[in-house]
Amino acid sequence: MKQLTRARITAVDAYDVRFPTSRRLDGSDAMHPDPDYSAAYVTIRTDAPDGLEGHGFCFTIGRGNEVAVAAIDALRPHLTGAELDGTLTGLADHYRALTGDSQLRWLGPDKGVTHMAIGAVLNALWDLHAKRAGKPLWKLLADLTPEELVALTDFRYLADALTPDEALLILRRAEPGKAEREARLRAEGYPAYAASPGWLGYSDAHLASAARRAVADGFTQIKLKVGADLEDDIRRCRIAREAVGPDIRIALDANQRWELGEAVEWTRALAGFDPYWIEEPTSPDEILGLAAIRRAVAPVKVAAGEHTANRVVFKQLLQAQALDILQLDACRVAGIPEHLAILLLAAQFGVPVCPHAGGVGLCELVRHLAMFDYVAVSGTLEDRTVEYVDHLHEHFTDPAVIARGRYTAPSVPGFSSTLRPASLHAYSYPNGAVWLAERAQGVA
Amino acid sequence: MKQLTRARITAVDAYDVRFPTSRRLDGSDAMHPDPDYSAAYVTIRTDAPDGLEGHGFCFTIGRGNEVAVAAIDALRPHLTGAELDGTLTGLADHYRALTGDSQLRWLGPDKGVTHMAIGAVLNALWDLHAKRAGKPLWKLLADLTPEELVALTDFRYLADALTPDEALLILRRAEPGKAEREARLRAEGYPAYAASPGWLGYSDAHLASAARRAVADGFTQIKLKVGADLEDDIRRCRIAREAVGPDIRIALDANQRWELGEAVEWTRALAGFDPYWIEEPTSPDEILGLAAIRRAVAPVKVAAGEHTANRVVFKQLLQAQALDILQLDACRVAGIPEHLAILLLAAQFGVPVCPHAGGVGLCELVRHLAMFDYVAVSGTLEDRTVEYVDHLHEHFTDPAVIARGRYTAPSVPGFSSTLRPASLHAYSYPNGAVWLAERAQGVA
Repeated sequence: MKQLTRARITAVDAYDVRFPTSRRLDGSDAMHPDPDYSAAYVTIRTDAPDGLEGHGFCFTIGRGNEVAVAAIDALRPHLTGAELDGTLTGLADHYRALTGDSQLRWLGPDKGVTHMAIGAVLNALWDLHAKRAGKPLWKLLADLTPEELVALTDFRYLADALTPDEALLILRRAEPGKAEREARLRAEGYPAYAASPGWLGYSDAHLASAARRAVADGFTQIKLKVGADLEDDIRRCRIAREAVGPDIRIALDANQRWELGEAVEWTRALAGFDPYWIEEPTSPDEILGLAAIRRAVAPVKVAAGEHTANRVVFKQLLQAQALDILQLDACRVAGIPEHLAILLLAAQFGVPVCPHAGGVGLCELVRHLAMFDYVAVSGTLEDRTVEYVDHLHEHFTDPAVIARGRYTAPSVPGFSSTLRPASLHAYSYPNGAVWLAERAQGVA
Repeated sequence: MKQLTRARITAVDAYDVRFPTSRRLDGSDAMHPDPDYSAAYVTIRTDAPDGLEGHGFCFTIGRGNEVAVAAIDALRPHLTGAELDGTLTGLADHYRALTGDSQLRWLGPDKGVTHMAIGAVLNALWDLHAKRAGKPLWKLLADLTPEELVALTDFRYLADALTPDEALLILRRAEPGKAEREARLRAEGYPAYAASPGWLGYSDAHLASAARRAVADGFTQIKLKVGADLEDDIRRCRIAREAVGPDIRIALDANQRWELGEAVEWTRALAGFDPYWIEEPTSPDEILGLAAIRRAVAPVKVAAGEHTANRVVFKQLLQAQALDILQLDACRVAGIPEHLAILLLAAQFGVPVCPHAGGVGLCELVRHLAMFDYVAVSGTLEDRTVEYVDHLHEHFTDPAVIARGRYTAPSVPGFSSTLRPASLHAYSYPNGAVWLAERAQGVA
């Protein structure tokens, strides 16, 4: 790997950026009726003559985005003035400094907005590293050796499920065929599914037409939000199934709405529409309960993970056989070292990873992780698919691109986490031009 | 119950208050070598002519306290201008508004600093309610009917372990003997144990003399921090056991330091010193792992809970038989409605609650919860004890009082969560007089 020059971090800035998505009920579900998709956005600058910046963000849904900004600010002393020596070892050291702060960890540990802030900063550091190395992040990771990847992985509290030696075996097992898979990925892309048709706030007519359009666009799976009202859900499932026909997978997403018994009954009541998975049927802190739901609703699969706090909870979800589908989120855990742990755990337990996306910027980021997983960890696309939602991509300099229902492999160096400067400016909260206009119209 | 007049909330202010405890290694353990005990402190004022204020706080250990302040600030719009109708129903409505904010919940849900901030604000609301009712909080709660308590409890996601009807049975079972237990509590106090002797940063001589002094002061249990170095721990356990003799319980606290196998081996290596419990042997997110440790280290008991994020995790810890001792924390979960859920869960599973205290203000608050539990929920003191640490009490207007190793029952109206104005002023961070002096001395 090309040796990068040293650079010193000169600035770590955090911005409160919000998109007024609640105006159109984009993103509405049973627990989050009116999200304003938002990012607590980090910019890392260095003294290197290349002028490159690293970018990352916490994804939030509006109120509280300023708390995420404060959490990023709290990490600044660890970074400003710190040296990026251009090595992976150096990046691992930064991970340990951020996650190991003996006072800050009290606010989690390993969970909530302080953990998400660590994820934002680490994603920015890796974005910068990949930009400096001249590679898209998925490719940078896929080119590392098994030993390098294991050295970067956070194994803390995982010893009873995954040791570094076991991780090495997984990665070595995936080495044959890497080049072939990479070529296939570049040629064909990575499977996606369409979550846009099924927001709870959309009308029946909009649902039907959006579902048909998704199939016409080449998607083989769509997703519906459920959980607010059973009669509505039965009607909407019927509309969706009639729109897409019998061969398209329909996933359901309850967004944590139910108690255990309720989850089982409700899912069974919708089973006639042949749902592929039920997502987040109950609290994201449930391990035992999710396992019980899974046993009760089979053959409907259970999917969860977008609100799973960290690798320790994922480990237990896998140990308890609570998951059929692991839904990695790019912005909830502590960056690449924890993503590596989660991908390796999933491989160890043979559970497919189908990342959570949507929101703002999640599609951009998570495709890198799924593609790396395919090339270098799981080695397969079987039952793998990444969520896709078709909005807000225009604000990114390297937006997600979908062709025939598949994510195109990114080719631009970095983690695709860079907002366009004009968007950063216009959507700044509360005083960007968009928000000033919203308030002038009396709607915000 | 006395009917309170209506009042409107006129101000919700949050303060960053820090105590430079790291200067003396008070509070040092294997994961937190240099805490500065801190509070993100809330003051709630109303337009009522009584002039009473409600106080609550997030407890933190220094850096990041400003993030907790930001999280409290994010809750302000739910409270400023809101009416306190003087009823319990009104308090329950405020709970639902704070925990149910559909945008803020993305930052948790139910965990991390945003959840702690909700706890701080709710504790302040209950402090105010108890002050207005003229009762210490433990007594106010103990005087409620089973139906009133159940109506206040957050049962969400608990249906598979505890229903409202089951909670009613528990509370009704405890009704006989309430007056007698209350009288006994006022006469004899509530058992405490001494955690001060065992901080990791203290010298052997200090440990020995502090352990002997704890016994002389009437404590029947002390606690030692362990987990950094096994040889040190063996030496310190020997010193402590020799100092206190065979009849005093010695609890050990690893503060999340170990992997599973390590926890079992280390605890067994110390078993010869007859430890009563091993506390937080591994990640606070472990449910399955903690259950495995418990099975392996018996008859040494397993204690945990101070970092347990919420009632859903407590429920699973109990369902998995992972706990011998449930260590409720007064400031990590969402106030009285969630405390009630946790106390009722513990009673349902027959597990004793021995609250976490220490830090700043935790002793003041948690005694109320333990005393209420004794009078109205568990009905017993058997194997119950509340942690006690003998510092920072002087900063509170109604400080914890210990007599013969037992907490005296508070008699002042409220939740004992009020800082003295002079302390609030002097320890404000970064510009209170104490911090200005610290910086002038070049140590902060």
